[in-house]
Amino acid sequence: MRDILLASTSTLLGGTYLNYLKSEIIELFKSVDEIIFIPYARPSGISHDEYTEKARSFFASINKKVKGLHEFSTVTDAIKNAQGFFTGGGNTFLLVKQLHEHKLMYMLRDEVLKGKPYLGCSAGSNIGGMNMQTTNDMPIVYPSSFETMGLVDFNINPHFLDEATYTKSMGETRETRIKEFLSQNQIPVIGLREGSWIRVKNDLVKLEGSLPAKIFEKDKEPYELAAHSEISF
Amino acid sequence: MRDILLASTSTLLGGTYLNYLKSEIIELFKSVDEIIFIPYARPSGISHDEYTEKARSFFASINKKVKGLHEFSTVTDAIKNAQGFFTGGGNTFLLVKQLHEHKLMYMLRDEVLKGKPYLGCSAGSNIGGMNMQTTNDMPIVYPSSFETMGLVDFNINPHFLDEATYTKSMGETRETRIKEFLSQNQIPVIGLREGSWIRVKNDLVKLEGSLPAKIFEKDKEPYELAAHSEISF
Repeated sequence: MRDILLASTSTLLGGTYLNYLKSEIIELFKSVDEIIFIPYARPSGISHDEYTEKARSFFASINKKVKGLHEFSTVTDAIKNAQGFFTGGGNTFLLVKQLHEHKLMYMLRDEVLKGKPYLGCSAGSNIGGMNMQTTNDMPIVYPSSFETMGLVDFNINPHFLDEATYTKSMGETRETRIKEFLSQNQIPVIGLREGSWIRVKNDLVKLEGSLPAKIFEKDKEPYELAAHSEISF
Repeated sequence: MRDILLASTSTLLGGTYLNYLKSEIIELFKSVDEIIFIPYARPSGISHDEYTEKARSFFASINKKVKGLHEFSTVTDAIKNAQGFFTGGGNTFLLVKQLHEHKLMYMLRDEVLKGKPYLGCSAGSNIGGMNMQTTNDMPIVYPSSFETMGLVDFNINPHFLDEATYTKSMGETRETRIKEFLSQNQIPVIGLREGSWIRVKNDLVKLEGSLPAKIFEKDKEPYELAAHSEISF
Protein backbone atom coordinates (compact mmCIF):
# COMPACT_ATOMS: atom_id res chain seq x y z
CA MET A 1 0.00 0.00 0.00
CA ARG A 2 1.31 3.42 -0.92
CA ASP A 3 -0.11 6.93 -0.46
CA ILE A 4 2.77 9.21 -1.34
CA LEU A 5 3.39 12.67 -2.76
CA LEU A 6 6.94 13.58 -3.83
CA ALA A 7 7.27 17.19 -4.93
CA SER A 8 10.15 18.95 -6.64
CA THR A 9 9.86 21.96 -4.36
CA SER A 10 7.96 23.29 -1.35
CA THR A 11 7.59 26.81 -2.66
CA LEU A 12 7.01 28.21 -6.14
CA LEU A 13 8.78 31.41 -7.14
CA GLY A 14 6.71 34.27 -5.68
CA GLY A 15 4.46 31.86 -3.77
CA THR A 16 4.20 30.93 -0.11
CA TYR A 17 5.27 27.72 1.60
CA LEU A 18 3.40 24.65 0.26
CA ASN A 19 0.55 26.83 -1.00
CA TYR A 20 0.52 25.47 -4.57
CA LEU A 21 0.07 21.95 -3.16
CA LYS A 22 -2.61 22.83 -0.61
CA SER A 23 -5.53 20.91 -2.10
CA GLU A 24 -3.28 17.90 -2.80
CA ILE A 25 -2.00 17.92 0.77
CA ILE A 26 -5.54 18.13 2.18
CA GLU A 27 -6.45 15.09 0.11
CA LEU A 28 -3.27 13.18 1.05
CA PHE A 29 -3.75 13.65 4.79
CA LYS A 30 -7.58 13.49 4.82
CA SER A 31 -7.74 10.62 7.33
CA VAL A 32 -4.94 11.91 9.56
CA ASP A 33 -5.02 14.59 12.26
CA GLU A 34 -1.35 14.65 13.26
CA ILE A 35 1.74 14.58 11.08
CA ILE A 36 5.34 13.88 12.05
CA PHE A 37 7.63 16.44 10.45
CA ILE A 38 11.21 15.39 9.71
CA PRO A 39 13.31 18.59 9.91
CA TYR A 40 16.78 17.03 9.50
CA ALA A 41 17.59 18.61 6.10
CA ARG A 42 17.77 22.10 7.71
CA PRO A 43 17.75 24.45 4.69
CA SER A 44 20.34 27.23 5.16
CA GLY A 45 21.22 25.66 8.50
CA ILE A 46 18.02 26.74 10.35
CA SER A 47 17.28 24.91 13.59
CA HIS A 48 14.99 21.89 13.87
CA ASP A 49 12.61 24.00 15.97
CA GLU A 50 12.45 26.87 13.49
CA TYR A 51 11.93 24.49 10.59
CA THR A 52 9.18 22.60 12.40
CA GLU A 53 7.41 25.90 13.18
CA LYS A 54 7.36 26.66 9.46
CA ALA A 55 5.68 23.33 8.71
CA ARG A 56 3.36 23.67 11.70
CA SER A 57 2.19 27.07 10.53
CA PHE A 58 1.16 25.72 7.13
CA PHE A 59 -0.55 22.62 8.51
CA ALA A 60 -2.43 24.70 11.08
CA SER A 61 -4.13 26.38 8.11
CA ILE A 62 -5.61 23.01 7.14
CA ASN A 63 -6.34 21.95 10.74
CA LYS A 64 -3.61 19.36 11.12
CA LYS A 65 -1.28 19.08 14.09
CA VAL A 66 2.47 18.76 13.48
CA LYS A 67 5.12 17.29 15.75
CA GLY A 68 8.80 17.61 14.93
CA LEU A 69 10.62 14.28 14.97
CA HIS A 70 13.41 15.89 17.03
CA GLU A 71 10.88 16.62 19.81
CA PHE A 72 10.63 12.93 20.72
CA SER A 73 13.02 11.26 23.13
CA THR A 74 12.64 7.96 21.25
CA VAL A 75 12.49 8.77 17.56
CA THR A 76 11.95 5.15 16.51
CA ASP A 77 8.73 5.02 18.56
CA ALA A 78 7.65 8.32 17.01
CA ILE A 79 8.01 6.83 13.53
CA LYS A 80 6.19 3.61 14.45
CA ASN A 81 3.30 5.41 16.16
CA ALA A 82 2.91 8.13 13.51
CA GLN A 83 -0.22 8.59 11.42
CA GLY A 84 1.63 10.25 8.54
CA PHE A 85 4.89 11.96 7.58
CA PHE A 86 6.26 15.09 5.97
CA THR A 87 9.97 15.44 5.19
CA GLY A 88 11.01 18.98 4.30
CA GLY A 89 13.73 20.05 1.88
CA GLY A 90 17.22 21.31 2.59
CA ASN A 91 20.50 19.46 2.37
CA THR A 92 20.01 15.82 1.34
CA PHE A 93 23.38 14.73 2.80
CA LEU A 94 22.40 16.07 6.24
CA LEU A 95 18.99 14.44 6.01
CA VAL A 96 20.26 11.04 4.90
CA LYS A 97 23.12 11.02 7.43
CA GLN A 98 20.73 11.57 10.31
CA LEU A 99 18.11 9.10 9.11
CA HIS A 100 20.80 6.39 8.89
CA GLU A 101 22.45 7.37 12.18
CA HIS A 102 19.14 7.06 14.02
CA LYS A 103 18.31 3.81 12.13
CA LEU A 104 15.19 5.47 10.75
CA MET A 105 15.56 5.17 6.97
CA TYR A 106 14.16 1.65 6.56
CA MET A 107 11.80 1.95 9.51
CA LEU A 108 10.25 5.02 7.86
CA ARG A 109 10.04 3.12 4.56
CA ASP A 110 8.25 0.22 6.24
CA GLU A 111 5.70 2.53 7.87
CA VAL A 112 5.06 4.33 4.57
CA LEU A 113 4.63 1.01 2.77
CA LYS A 114 1.87 0.12 5.27
CA GLY A 115 -0.09 2.93 3.62
CA LYS A 116 0.62 5.83 5.98
CA PRO A 117 0.58 9.06 3.94
CA TYR A 118 4.01 10.52 3.10
CA LEU A 119 4.78 13.98 1.76
CA GLY A 120 8.28 14.86 0.59
CA CYS A 121 9.63 18.08 -0.90
CA SER A 122 13.01 18.37 -2.58
CA ALA A 123 15.44 16.48 -0.27
CA GLY A 124 12.35 14.81 1.22
CA SER A 125 11.53 13.58 -2.29
CA ASN A 126 15.11 12.49 -3.00
CA ILE A 127 14.82 10.00 -0.13
CA GLY A 128 11.72 8.51 -1.75
CA GLY A 129 13.92 7.31 -4.64
CA MET A 130 16.32 4.36 -4.74
CA ASN A 131 19.28 6.41 -3.58
CA MET A 132 20.25 10.04 -3.03
CA GLN A 133 22.80 10.05 -5.83
CA THR A 134 20.86 12.46 -8.05
CA THR A 135 20.60 15.21 -5.45
CA ASN A 136 21.82 18.69 -6.39
CA ASP A 137 23.20 19.35 -2.92
CA MET A 138 26.72 19.87 -1.67
CA PRO A 139 28.16 16.95 0.36
CA ILE A 140 28.53 18.98 3.56
CA VAL A 141 28.49 15.85 5.75
CA TYR A 142 29.32 12.17 5.11
CA PRO A 143 26.35 9.80 5.40
CA SER A 144 27.01 6.14 6.25
CA SER A 145 25.21 5.19 3.03
CA PHE A 146 23.65 6.90 0.00
CA GLU A 147 20.75 4.40 -0.02
CA THR A 148 17.32 5.83 0.57
CA MET A 149 13.80 4.44 1.01
CA GLY A 150 13.07 3.23 -2.51
CA LEU A 151 9.36 4.08 -2.24
CA VAL A 152 9.49 4.21 -6.04
CA ASP A 153 11.75 2.21 -8.36
CA PHE A 154 13.59 5.20 -9.80
CA ASN A 155 15.55 8.25 -8.67
CA ILE A 156 14.33 11.82 -8.56
CA ASN A 157 16.25 14.91 -9.55
CA PRO A 158 14.26 17.73 -7.95
CA HIS A 159 14.43 21.33 -9.18
CA PHE A 160 15.28 20.01 -12.64
CA LEU A 161 16.66 22.75 -14.90
CA ASP A 162 16.71 22.73 -18.69
CA GLU A 163 19.90 23.19 -20.67
CA ALA A 164 18.75 26.63 -21.80
CA THR A 165 18.75 27.90 -18.21
CA TYR A 166 22.54 27.70 -18.09
CA THR A 167 25.00 30.20 -19.47
CA LYS A 168 28.24 28.79 -20.88
CA SER A 169 30.21 29.96 -17.87
CA MET A 170 28.09 27.90 -15.47
CA GLY A 171 29.81 24.58 -16.09
CA GLU A 172 28.08 21.21 -16.29
CA THR A 173 24.35 21.34 -16.90
CA ARG A 174 21.93 19.18 -14.95
CA GLU A 175 21.60 16.86 -17.97
CA THR A 176 25.36 16.34 -18.11
CA ARG A 177 25.39 15.44 -14.41
CA ILE A 178 22.49 12.99 -14.68
CA LYS A 179 24.16 11.36 -17.69
CA GLU A 180 27.33 10.96 -15.59
CA PHE A 181 25.16 9.25 -12.94
CA LEU A 182 23.87 6.87 -15.62
CA SER A 183 27.42 6.09 -16.75
CA GLN A 184 27.84 4.44 -13.32
CA ASN A 185 24.29 3.32 -12.44
CA GLN A 186 21.26 1.59 -14.00
CA ILE A 187 18.51 3.43 -12.09
CA PRO A 188 16.17 5.62 -14.20
CA VAL A 189 16.00 9.29 -13.18
CA ILE A 190 13.01 11.63 -13.30
CA GLY A 191 14.05 15.25 -13.86
CA LEU A 192 11.19 16.88 -11.93
CA ARG A 193 10.63 20.54 -12.80
CA GLU A 194 9.48 23.13 -10.25
CA GLY A 195 5.73 22.84 -9.72
CA SER A 196 5.68 19.13 -10.65
CA TRP A 197 5.13 16.24 -8.27
CA ILE A 198 4.82 12.48 -8.29
CA ARG A 199 1.66 11.00 -6.79
CA VAL A 200 1.71 7.35 -5.78
CA LYS A 201 -1.51 5.54 -4.87
CA ASN A 202 -0.81 1.87 -4.32
CA ASP A 203 0.46 0.58 -7.71
CA LEU A 204 -0.30 3.74 -9.67
CA VAL A 205 2.58 6.20 -10.02
CA LYS A 206 1.70 9.43 -11.84
CA LEU A 207 3.42 12.65 -12.82
CA GLU A 208 1.30 15.61 -11.70
CA GLY A 209 1.39 19.38 -12.06
CA SER A 210 1.23 21.23 -15.36
CA LEU A 211 4.70 20.52 -16.79
CA PRO A 212 6.27 17.49 -18.44
CA ALA A 213 9.21 15.76 -16.73
CA LYS A 214 12.45 14.76 -18.40
CA ILE A 215 13.22 11.06 -18.12
CA PHE A 216 16.74 9.64 -18.21
CA GLU A 217 17.35 5.93 -18.71
CA LYS A 218 20.64 4.15 -19.27
CA ASP A 219 21.63 3.87 -22.94
CA LYS A 220 18.55 5.82 -24.11
CA GLU A 221 18.13 9.38 -25.30
CA PRO A 222 16.45 11.44 -22.56
CA TYR A 223 12.77 12.07 -23.32
CA GLU A 224 9.86 14.15 -22.07
CA LEU A 225 6.92 12.60 -20.21
CA ALA A 226 3.67 14.58 -20.33
CA ALA A 227 1.96 15.77 -17.16
CA HIS A 228 -0.66 13.34 -15.79
CA SER A 229 1.12 10.36 -17.39
CA GLU A 230 1.76 7.15 -15.56
CA ILE A 231 5.43 6.55 -14.68
CA SER A 232 6.48 2.98 -15.32
CA PHE A 233 9.81 1.30 -16.13
CA MET B 1 58.36 20.59 0.69
CA ARG B 2 55.56 21.55 -1.65
CA ASP B 3 55.47 22.43 -5.35
CA ILE B 4 51.78 22.49 -6.18
CA LEU B 5 49.39 24.19 -8.58
CA LEU B 6 45.63 23.85 -7.94
CA ALA B 7 43.52 25.41 -10.69
CA SER B 8 39.80 26.12 -10.77
CA THR B 9 39.50 24.81 -14.32
CA SER B 10 41.49 23.18 -17.11
CA THR B 11 39.96 25.21 -19.90
CA LEU B 12 38.81 28.81 -20.12
CA LEU B 13 35.66 29.61 -22.08
CA GLY B 14 36.69 29.75 -25.76
CA GLY B 15 40.21 28.49 -24.95
CA THR B 16 41.96 25.16 -25.48
CA TYR B 17 42.89 22.57 -22.88
CA LEU B 18 45.36 23.92 -20.27
CA ASN B 19 46.50 26.67 -22.63
CA TYR B 20 45.99 29.57 -20.21
CA LEU B 21 48.28 27.78 -17.70
CA LYS B 22 50.99 26.80 -20.19
CA SER B 23 53.83 28.95 -18.85
CA GLU B 24 52.93 28.03 -15.26
CA ILE B 25 52.91 24.34 -16.12
CA ILE B 26 56.30 24.60 -17.87
CA GLU B 27 57.71 26.20 -14.73
CA LEU B 28 56.06 23.66 -12.39
CA PHE B 29 57.41 20.65 -14.25
CA LYS B 30 60.76 22.16 -15.25
CA SER B 31 62.86 19.41 -13.65
CA VAL B 32 60.62 16.54 -14.72
CA ASP B 33 60.42 14.72 -18.04
CA GLU B 34 57.54 12.31 -17.31
CA ILE B 35 54.24 12.96 -15.55
CA ILE B 36 51.76 10.47 -14.15
CA PHE B 37 48.24 11.45 -15.19
CA ILE B 38 45.38 10.42 -12.90
CA PRO B 39 42.33 10.03 -15.15
CA TYR B 40 39.85 8.66 -12.59
CA ALA B 41 37.46 11.65 -12.57
CA ARG B 42 36.37 10.83 -16.16
CA PRO B 43 34.48 14.00 -17.22
CA SER B 44 31.25 13.09 -19.06
CA GLY B 45 32.18 9.44 -18.55
CA ILE B 46 35.04 9.34 -21.11
CA SER B 47 37.43 6.38 -20.84
CA HIS B 48 40.71 6.48 -18.95
CA ASP B 49 42.53 6.03 -22.28
CA GLU B 50 40.72 8.88 -24.01
CA TYR B 51 41.27 11.18 -21.07
CA THR B 52 44.96 10.34 -20.85
CA GLU B 53 45.35 11.04 -24.58
CA LYS B 54 43.94 14.50 -24.00
CA ALA B 55 46.52 15.21 -21.30
CA ARG B 56 49.30 13.57 -23.34
CA SER B 57 48.53 15.77 -26.31
CA PHE B 58 48.92 18.96 -24.24
CA PHE B 59 52.10 17.82 -22.50
CA ALA B 60 53.65 16.73 -25.84
CA SER B 61 53.49 20.42 -26.79
CA ILE B 62 55.87 21.20 -23.91
CA ASN B 63 58.02 18.09 -24.45
CA LYS B 64 56.88 16.11 -21.45
CA LYS B 65 55.90 12.46 -21.50
CA VAL B 66 52.62 11.38 -19.87
CA LYS B 67 51.66 7.96 -18.53
CA GLY B 68 48.10 7.24 -17.41
CA LEU B 69 47.95 5.77 -13.91
CA HIS B 70 45.52 3.12 -15.20
CA GLU B 71 48.23 1.85 -17.58
CA PHE B 72 50.25 0.40 -14.68
CA SER B 73 49.63 -3.07 -13.31
CA THR B 74 50.74 -1.90 -9.85
CA VAL B 75 49.40 1.60 -9.35
CA THR B 76 51.04 2.03 -5.94
CA ASP B 77 54.49 1.51 -7.52
CA ALA B 78 53.57 4.00 -10.23
CA ILE B 79 52.83 6.64 -7.60
CA LYS B 80 56.00 5.91 -5.63
CA ASN B 81 58.24 5.97 -8.69
CA ALA B 82 56.66 9.02 -10.31
CA GLN B 83 58.52 12.27 -10.94
CA GLY B 84 55.36 14.40 -10.88
CA PHE B 85 51.57 14.24 -11.07
CA PHE B 86 48.59 15.72 -12.86
CA THR B 87 45.03 14.96 -11.77
CA GLY B 88 42.41 16.01 -14.31
CA GLY B 89 38.91 17.27 -13.59
CA GLY B 90 35.58 15.47 -13.90
CA ASN B 91 33.48 13.93 -11.16
CA THR B 92 35.09 14.31 -7.72
CA PHE B 93 33.10 11.41 -6.23
CA LEU B 94 34.43 9.03 -8.90
CA LEU B 95 37.97 10.31 -8.42
CA VAL B 96 37.94 10.08 -4.63
CA LYS B 97 36.27 6.66 -4.62
CA GLN B 98 38.98 5.19 -6.82
CA LEU B 99 41.87 6.84 -5.00
CA HIS B 100 40.63 5.39 -1.71
CA GLU B 101 39.81 1.98 -3.22
CA HIS B 102 43.33 1.66 -4.57
CA LYS B 103 44.82 3.02 -1.29
CA LEU B 104 46.37 5.87 -3.25
CA MET B 105 45.03 9.01 -1.56
CA TYR B 106 47.56 9.24 1.26
CA MET B 107 50.36 7.66 -0.74
CA LEU B 108 49.91 10.38 -3.35
CA ARG B 109 49.88 13.02 -0.60
CA ASP B 110 53.13 11.66 0.84
CA GLU B 111 54.86 11.75 -2.54
CA VAL B 112 53.65 15.31 -3.19
CA LEU B 113 54.85 16.42 0.25
CA LYS B 114 58.33 15.16 -0.67
CA GLY B 115 58.35 18.00 -3.20
CA LYS B 116 57.26 16.20 -6.37
CA PRO B 117 55.33 18.67 -8.54
CA TYR B 118 51.54 18.28 -8.51
CA LEU B 119 49.04 19.87 -10.89
CA GLY B 120 45.31 19.62 -10.22
CA CYS B 121 42.38 21.04 -12.13
CA SER B 122 38.84 21.20 -10.78
CA ALA B 123 38.23 17.75 -9.15
CA GLY B 124 42.03 17.38 -9.13
CA SER B 125 42.17 20.59 -7.08
CA ASN B 126 39.33 19.52 -4.78
CA ILE B 127 41.48 16.59 -3.64
CA GLY B 128 44.27 19.00 -2.70
CA GLY B 129 41.98 20.42 0.02
CA MET B 130 41.14 18.92 3.41
CA ASN B 131 38.09 17.08 2.10
CA MET B 132 35.93 16.92 -1.01
CA GLN B 133 32.89 18.37 0.71
CA THR B 134 32.88 21.62 -1.26
CA THR B 135 32.76 19.98 -4.67
CA ASN B 136 29.99 21.00 -7.05
CA ASP B 137 29.60 17.48 -8.41
CA MET B 138 26.73 15.03 -8.23
CA PRO B 139 27.32 12.04 -5.90
CA ILE B 140 27.16 9.45 -8.69
CA VAL B 141 29.16 6.90 -6.67
CA TYR B 142 29.77 6.38 -2.94
CA PRO B 143 33.38 6.88 -1.83
CA SER B 144 34.59 5.10 1.31
CA SER B 145 35.54 8.52 2.71
CA PHE B 146 35.24 12.20 1.75
CA GLU B 147 38.76 12.90 3.09
CA THR B 148 41.29 14.10 0.58
CA MET B 149 45.02 14.89 0.59
CA GLY B 150 45.06 18.08 2.64
CA LEU B 151 47.97 19.53 0.68
CA VAL B 152 46.65 22.88 1.92
CA ASP B 153 44.81 23.60 5.18
CA PHE B 154 41.56 24.71 3.58
CA ASN B 155 38.97 23.52 1.08
CA ILE B 156 38.57 24.64 -2.51
CA ASN B 157 35.35 25.36 -4.31
CA PRO B 158 36.39 25.33 -7.97
CA HIS B 159 34.37 27.06 -10.71
CA PHE B 160 33.14 29.51 -8.10
CA LEU B 161 30.13 31.52 -9.32
CA ASP B 162 28.93 34.85 -8.00
CA GLU B 163 25.39 35.36 -6.75
CA ALA B 164 24.59 37.54 -9.76
CA THR B 165 25.17 34.60 -12.12
CA TYR B 166 22.05 32.88 -10.83
CA THR B 167 18.48 33.60 -11.83
CA LYS B 168 15.85 33.25 -9.12
CA SER B 169 14.58 29.99 -10.59
CA MET B 170 17.99 28.33 -10.20
CA GLY B 171 17.70 27.48 -6.52
CA GLU B 172 20.54 27.69 -4.00
CA THR B 173 23.51 29.80 -5.03
CA ARG B 174 27.07 28.65 -4.53
CA GLU B 175 27.38 30.99 -1.53
CA THR B 176 24.33 29.47 0.13
CA ARG B 177 25.81 25.99 -0.33
CA ILE B 178 29.22 26.94 1.05
CA LYS B 179 27.54 28.60 4.05
CA GLU B 180 25.64 25.33 4.64
CA PHE B 181 29.01 23.54 4.59
CA LEU B 182 30.29 25.98 7.24
CA SER B 183 27.22 25.36 9.39
CA GLN B 184 28.59 21.80 9.80
CA ASN B 185 32.36 22.27 9.41
CA GLN B 186 35.20 24.55 10.57
CA ILE B 187 37.39 24.37 7.44
CA PRO B 188 37.84 27.65 5.50
CA VAL B 189 36.78 27.54 1.84
CA ILE B 190 38.34 29.36 -1.11
CA GLY B 191 35.79 30.15 -3.82
CA LEU B 192 38.15 29.95 -6.80
CA ARG B 193 36.85 31.69 -9.92
CA GLU B 194 37.54 30.44 -13.45
CA GLY B 195 41.03 31.45 -14.51
CA SER B 196 42.32 31.55 -10.93
CA TRP B 197 44.71 29.08 -9.34
CA ILE B 198 46.54 28.47 -6.09
CA ARG B 199 50.32 28.16 -6.24
CA VAL B 200 52.11 26.50 -3.35
CA LYS B 201 55.90 26.66 -3.02
CA ASN B 202 56.98 25.15 0.26
CA ASP B 203 55.40 27.35 2.95
CA LEU B 204 54.13 30.04 0.60
CA VAL B 205 50.53 29.67 -0.61
CA LYS B 206 49.39 32.29 -3.11
CA LEU B 207 46.28 33.10 -5.11
CA GLU B 208 47.22 33.56 -8.76
CA GLY B 209 45.48 34.63 -11.97
CA SER B 210 43.84 37.99 -12.52
CA LEU B 211 40.72 37.68 -10.35
CA PRO B 212 40.14 37.89 -6.61
CA ALA B 213 38.85 34.81 -4.77
CA LYS B 214 35.96 34.74 -2.32
CA ILE B 215 36.91 33.44 1.11
CA PHE B 216 34.46 31.77 3.48
CA GLU B 217 35.30 31.22 7.14
CA LYS B 218 33.05 30.00 9.92
CA ASP B 219 31.19 32.80 11.72
CA LYS B 220 32.67 35.50 9.45
CA GLU B 221 31.20 37.44 6.57
CA PRO B 222 32.63 36.13 3.28
CA TYR B 223 35.30 38.43 1.87
CA GLU B 224 37.33 38.96 -1.29
CA LEU B 225 41.04 38.20 -1.46
CA ALA B 226 42.97 40.06 -4.17
CA ALA B 227 44.93 38.18 -6.84
CA HIS B 228 48.60 37.56 -5.94
CA SER B 229 47.81 37.65 -2.22
CA GLU B 230 49.15 35.12 0.20
CA ILE B 231 46.53 32.70 1.56
CA SER B 232 46.89 32.11 5.27
CA PHE B 233 44.47 31.13 8.05
